[in-house]
Amino acid sequence: MDLLSIKDPSFLNDLEIKELEALSEDIRHFLIKKLSKTGGHIGPNLGVVELTIALHKCFDSPKDKIIWDVGHQSYVHKILTGRASEFDTLRQYKGLCGFPKMAESEHDVWETGHSSTSLSAAMGMAIARDLKGENSFIVPVIGDGALTGGMALEAMNHIGHEKKNMIVILNDNEMSIAPNVGALHNVLGRLRTAGKYQWAKDELEMLLKKIPAVGGRLASTAERIKDSLKYLLVSGMFFEEMGFTYLGPVDGHNFEVLFEHLRYAKKTEGPVLLHVVTKKGKGYKPAETDKVGTWHGTGPYKIETGDFLKPVNTPPAWSKLISETVRKLAREDKRIIAITPAMPVGSKLEGFASEFPDRMIDVGIAEQHAATLAAGLVTQKMKPFLAIYSTFLQRAYDQVVHDICRPNLNVFIGIDRAGLVGADGETHQGVFDIAFLRSLPNIVIMMPKDENEGQHMVYTALKYDDGPIALRYPRGNGLGVPMDKQLKAIPIGTWEILREGKDAAILTFGTTIGMAIEAANLLEKKGIHIKVINARFIKPLDEQMLTQLLNNNMPILTIEESVLQGGFGSAVSEFAHDHGYHHAIIDRMGVPDKFIEHGSVDALLEEIGLTTANVVKKIYTLIPKKEKRA
Amino acid sequence: MDLLSIKDPSFLNDLEIKELEALSEDIRHFLIKKLSKTGGHIGPNLGVVELTIALHKCFDSPKDKIIWDVGHQSYVHKILTGRASEFDTLRQYKGLCGFPKMAESEHDVWETGHSSTSLSAAMGMAIARDLKGENSFIVPVIGDGALTGGMALEAMNHIGHEKKNMIVILNDNEMSIAPNVGALHNVLGRLRTAGKYQWAKDELEMLLKKIPAVGGRLASTAERIKDSLKYLLVSGMFFEEMGFTYLGPVDGHNFEVLFEHLRYAKKTEGPVLLHVVTKKGKGYKPAETDKVGTWHGTGPYKIETGDFLKPVNTPPAWSKLISETVRKLAREDKRIIAITPAMPVGSKLEGFASEFPDRMIDVGIAEQHAATLAAGLVTQKMKPFLAIYSTFLQRAYDQVVHDICRPNLNVFIGIDRAGLVGADGETHQGVFDIAFLRSLPNIVIMMPKDENEGQHMVYTALKYDDGPIALRYPRGNGLGVPMDKQLKAIPIGTWEILREGKDAAILTFGTTIGMAIEAANLLEKKGIHIKVINARFIKPLDEQMLTQLLNNNMPILTIEESVLQGGFGSAVSEFAHDHGYHHAIIDRMGVPDKFIEHGSVDALLEEIGLTTANVVKKIYTLIPKKEKRA
Repeated sequence: MDLLSIKDPSFLNDLEIKELEALSEDIRHFLIKKLSKTGGHIGPNLGVVELTIALHKCFDSPKDKIIWDVGHQSYVHKILTGRASEFDTLRQYKGLCGFPKMAESEHDVWETGHSSTSLSAAMGMAIARDLKGENSFIVPVIGDGALTGGMALEAMNHIGHEKKNMIVILNDNEMSIAPNVGALHNVLGRLRTAGKYQWAKDELEMLLKKIPAVGGRLASTAERIKDSLKYLLVSGMFFEEMGFTYLGPVDGHNFEVLFEHLRYAKKTEGPVLLHVVTKKGKGYKPAETDKVGTWHGTGPYKIETGDFLKPVNTPPAWSKLISETVRKLAREDKRIIAITPAMPVGSKLEGFASEFPDRMIDVGIAEQHAATLAAGLVTQKMKPFLAIYSTFLQRAYDQVVHDICRPNLNVFIGIDRAGLVGADGETHQGVFDIAFLRSLPNIVIMMPKDENEGQHMVYTALKYDDGPIALRYPRGNGLGVPMDKQLKAIPIGTWEILREGKDAAILTFGTTIGMAIEAANLLEKKGIHIKVINARFIKPLDEQMLTQLLNNNMPILTIEESVLQGGFGSAVSEFAHDHGYHHAIIDRMGVPDKFIEHGSVDALLEEIGLTTANVVKKIYTLIPKKEKRA
Repeated sequence: MDLLSIKDPSFLNDLEIKELEALSEDIRHFLIKKLSKTGGHIGPNLGVVELTIALHKCFDSPKDKIIWDVGHQSYVHKILTGRASEFDTLRQYKGLCGFPKMAESEHDVWETGHSSTSLSAAMGMAIARDLKGENSFIVPVIGDGALTGGMALEAMNHIGHEKKNMIVILNDNEMSIAPNVGALHNVLGRLRTAGKYQWAKDELEMLLKKIPAVGGRLASTAERIKDSLKYLLVSGMFFEEMGFTYLGPVDGHNFEVLFEHLRYAKKTEGPVLLHVVTKKGKGYKPAETDKVGTWHGTGPYKIETGDFLKPVNTPPAWSKLISETVRKLAREDKRIIAITPAMPVGSKLEGFASEFPDRMIDVGIAEQHAATLAAGLVTQKMKPFLAIYSTFLQRAYDQVVHDICRPNLNVFIGIDRAGLVGADGETHQGVFDIAFLRSLPNIVIMMPKDENEGQHMVYTALKYDDGPIALRYPRGNGLGVPMDKQLKAIPIGTWEILREGKDAAILTFGTTIGMAIEAANLLEKKGIHIKVINARFIKPLDEQMLTQLLNNNMPILTIEESVLQGGFGSAVSEFAHDHGYHHAIIDRMGVPDKFIEHGSVDALLEEIGLTTANVVKKIYTLIPKKEKRA
């Protein structure tokens, strides 16, 4: 059918299973074609085509509330709720968001991006519904990976206790982003094969009938045996223990069984967990056969072959450059251990994992545990490298404060995807970490100007033993600079002058160094001489160099791809005021006080004014002031 | 025995059970007497006397690692490891810490304060032990309340999967700080009464023997029945599902059974969970019969009666003032719902709970869930009041960013215990929240000068509907000011001039207003006229008033009981620089860049220099500068 003509999911009411199957085909073709151009989360969405159709047929959205955990699997939902025509703009600037977005549709009743939030949100909605005496179904859809996130377990504990009516769809594709780990994963594995035990249940019934009638107490014991076996063999004990009625597992690509179980779930009192087994990438061979998570989210690809259309000869990704340097150093230092919360692929730790399987720890989606685990390792003189995306480090904030910085433990935090991340948008921008880390005692925070300095910083971090040390690096690829053979430690708290100049100084680090240099070169042509400093240590500052600038009454411009409130620029201005340089001219450029939506990083930088042209303009505003003072 | 003579736990080796029982008596007397003077966590410690002795007798600390979750139950451990003589200084400035502290003793192998961290730390230690080929027992001791914290469940999932050798002691006293909630609590309840089912197991054996021999498949079914019943009736399915060998429940006050089970646990491969049932407050009637948590942590008390020695006629506690105002407003607005993560008593929500039991949500120790649950409620037009201590809000940081601020949901966060908290020390100081919240878009942050303004701010927050709004209030009691009958909304982002003056301005809020006024009065006598401003909105700033000050070239001193890095003072200086006031004299007083240990708030303020005398001194340094410029 013509997917572009869909206004809302009500058309599903009239469709028979055959027609729904045809619709599924159409949606798959549509997704494979559209995403081959735009990129996007192809694997997760191909896996939930039938499930999403079934949910929209069985429930009355938006009165009934379908809540997508993480949300990268909401494309089919977006098609069924009238947004097919926008897929050419998927994840692009001002285009369709890759996650649910309340502003896009009344059918997006909750916004996601980070994992494991859906059950808490659903519980809030259920409590509100019941207090208002309303009648609606609340249907969070959560993956098996997201279920291991601590907050999801906190929510289950609460929901199971309160016995709220709620239908939790466990979308079990046997992997989160990478293959899953954890005891819960084993539980699910056992449940998935539960069908094999069906015979045991049947024979049990027979067996129980043979038990001689002994009356009274023993009879009730027999009843209990019956219950317990039902429990053990055909039911999800873990979930039942948590207070849920467990249904499943069912084939998530079979409409008939989906309808049957959803109907049953709707009639069940209290919280239900319907275990649906789906296949990530279903219907597109390259994605379907992916075992490691390459097809979780991709860039554009060639449909016929499944080859990714990457620009040729790009320098290696930052994640790879950092993780491989850690790997190299791990050869000489047995104390080095790598930790990832479910991101071995994203963090490019596959090489480390294959060389040091015993020293590679993937804890699953569990950032809090990952951080404190690292701290525990340090108490035993190990050297953990905690690779974690800036945006996900937010989940471990208290652990960084309480378990790492407070006891001053020497954890090496690799802050991946620091700065703007582009297409994943406002839930994923890595722009808060400087503000939330800089205010903590004991921590060192650094960011390299290029991958050569990056490798030296890895070395610096792993040689450092005086407390926590964080190395920020951006999403995307390195600059392609030559790499030194010999690694060296960079003295903590030292900056580097990249360019001399007497009229003003630009203090910046990482990704914004390029525009600073460019601006300085442009200004040079106008006779304005700009000093550019690689402020590679965000904490501690290079107090000596900064003092010199202040003593010389040099106007200072700070630039950071990070929030301005409490950021690096504030640190510079704090230092100036604290040391009595009240007349210092300090101006700051950075990410303004709003959430930054999705789009290419270039488009976003343009939007927030982080451009070479604006650096030039800003410098002009600082120079006359200097002249007025002189 | 003479507890003061204990050097380390090795003396326990020679003691028989009778002697251990006598020792327990001595320790209880000691604790009851010492804590009656100093205050402290009496309930939790009286509950673990035998357990702690048993652990130190069965394990070889510090080679074997005993890890106290939360850590407020480590007093007996401190006595047994040679610190009895320091109990007169418990929780006092430069005295014995109320939590484990690595610097105090080699037996404190991990530091705590916040809950639910022990399992992650233990897992780190276990991984390190195995990599190094060492041999030691790792024994985290975690309460039933702490077990519901998401990160503890994340850790269990990991430990159970990896099958590491570890003996987790579940110290189940049927309450965390207040009585427990949650499905896991129900699981534990069933396990606690498991003894009652022992007969069922015995009869089961009999029953199974009666099953006619059918050979082959059916026989194996019978085996499976046996297993499953063992599982169901005498074992902790939840924990077994998580990959642990479950032992217990056992009486935590009976040495014989403790020894027997600990011995068994030591011989068991893989992770073991030993379920120990203890009684909080055991051996001291007033604490033992406490049902709500009053005796969890206390101030000094009269031993004979259990009466607390509180100063007479103190004004009500801040928590009570705020929560009772919410309660009052909840009478007129049915949308108002109170949420607490396990702190109904601390947050003084008992009144609200008794009047609106349906609108009171205690989620247990689960701050992440609490915050996102609040967000979920807002999507359904409810008005949640999330009461949470500043230090525990750290655990919900990502949820505040991702689920509250990003979608701009109107959650009212009551930040209790904001600022220095005193005796609980460095794990509990509420000094980071301004820095970590101020950098987030959309949020309003305010703090009242007194309880009358506090009640108006509650009203302001509950009438506000434009996004998240946080109200900070300190630990301790109000000032005793008269309370207005009629509540009113304070315009967002407006400050208040408390005192006029032309020579300099002090900008401050909350608890530090008193010293500002005092300093101004002292300076007035010297002919220096200080304007004092109640900067009650920390975000947004009162830009109009601030612009006026800057236009008048008024030297500005900011004072905050909060970290200086990225704090309120930085916000003021950011504003000045952003608006071109590069000559503004701005100086800041606040909490320096280090963790602040335990002690009375007054002693701590003195230590960090937040005193009236220093405010006066600071003003003097600002005034001459002004004159030099003039």
